Amino acid sequence: MQAAGPLTVTRLEGGLADAYAAVLCDLDGCLVSGATALPGAVDFARSCGPRLWIVSNNSSDTAASLSDRLATLGFDIPPERILLAGEQALRDIADRRPGARIYLAASGRLEALARSLGLSPVTLMADVALLARDPDFGLVRLSQLVRVLAGGAELVVANPDLVHPGADGLPEPETGALLASLAACWPDLTYQTVGKPQTALLSEAMRRAGVEAAEALFVGDNPLTDGIAAQRAGIAFLHVLPPVLAAPGPTKGD
Amino acid sequence: MQAAGPLTVTRLEGGLADAYAAVLCDLDGCLVSGATALPGAVDFARSCGPRLWIVSNNSSDTAASLSDRLATLGFDIPPERILLAGEQALRDIADRRPGARIYLAASGRLEALARSLGLSPVTLMADVALLARDPDFGLVRLSQLVRVLAGGAELVVANPDLVHPGADGLPEPETGALLASLAACWPDLTYQTVGKPQTALLSEAMRRAGVEAAEALFVGDNPLTDGIAAQRAGIAFLHVLPPVLAAPGPTKGD
Repeated sequence: MQAAGPLTVTRLEGGLADAYAAVLCDLDGCLVSGATALPGAVDFARSCGPRLWIVSNNSSDTAASLSDRLATLGFDIPPERILLAGEQALRDIADRRPGARIYLAASGRLEALARSLGLSPVTLMADVALLARDPDFGLVRLSQLVRVLAGGAELVVANPDLVHPGADGLPEPETGALLASLAACWPDLTYQTVGKPQTALLSEAMRRAGVEAAEALFVGDNPLTDGIAAQRAGIAFLHVLPPVLAAPGPTKGD
Repeated sequence: MQAAGPLTVTRLEGGLADAYAAVLCDLDGCLVSGATALPGAVDFARSCGPRLWIVSNNSSDTAASLSDRLATLGFDIPPERILLAGEQALRDIADRRPGARIYLAASGRLEALARSLGLSPVTLMADVALLARDPDFGLVRLSQLVRVLAGGAELVVANPDLVHPGADGLPEPETGALLASLAACWPDLTYQTVGKPQTALLSEAMRRAGVEAAEALFVGDNPLTDGIAAQRAGIAFLHVLPPVLAAPGPTKGD
């Protein structure tokens, strides 16, 4: 399993990444789907052991909350080995603009993290606005976002994904779909993102793991985010078909 | 005041539409801005008397709720003379598909109206979905909308406006901005709308008023919705500059 080009599999299994010193792995559609571990995923994670790093565009959890949730599904992955777009975006903001006033279109978990990083959540007169996978997104948040942008706030978008595959195979709305609403109201939108296909999350995982790109494998289900990020970072890519494509179709008599 | 081309004014005043048998008038930006009557608007409405018809892409109120609200601002306009995109979309659906199961991304007022029209609000397995200016729009509604569309529901969008001008001059998100989120999740979107620039609301007002297009004036602040609808319907158009353009700029010493 050391081919140069991308390999495609329909499911993960133990031993699949034994040749690599670090295994960077997307979460939704690879290890889990909604609240369920995907077939083979727990065995795969166990065989990777401490070589496994989660690199996900998730922008509603924190590493700590996600580690706890993954434990209930049989995955033993400490927060230190979980890199998430939403959390990383907040950490980047806190590094670049210590103590900044921040408008959060984001979950309560990210708001608590922002406070713990010394940022000051506000609803007006913000220095920076973070758009993440916000469960309370709607007309009020949209209107407030327009006003903080009009006031000169810098916009950070955790991740650009429009959707991720739901447990039923249908698209589940993601942060990028919320961004489409904002862009409709405020057309001259410019923003930064740390989410894939940017390579920031992958670089941070490799830095923490102490490995070079040639020693790492990236495992993902989305060629447009995971695949491009892996290619940009010079990391071998293992393409896992998302459950809806990997599942056998219905047959007569089913 | 019977020029063939569009006339532009910075504010309404009494007598401005005396030459017309029916005066169709947009609401936001013409008569009111947010919760305030615009300068000259009450005098204008009084001078029109029963010749005045509200024709608005509003999709959160009903004619009854709006008539009550306008009364507190000094306007005496009964519900029968108020045509709103959201309410009219529901009435059209009830006419075309009596008793239909309807998914409502809409205000509680529109839900109550849907029930009174014999429609059955559901969250799954809908025959038709209505997207209006939904105060509770967000990830849950988006996800449910994708699922009812995947199940074959017909989509009706009350109005296509991306924004309307807020009281502070900044864009306030409208139903079209919410539609942009849905289109991001479900790209092959097709839908019907009754809102301007469609002419359905104007035709219904003229039918109720018993006038021909040549006898009517349309008063609106948005050339792209009001102006185009008036042109399509063959009605003279009076362009009222929205408050932010009509207001004098700040001067030194202000």
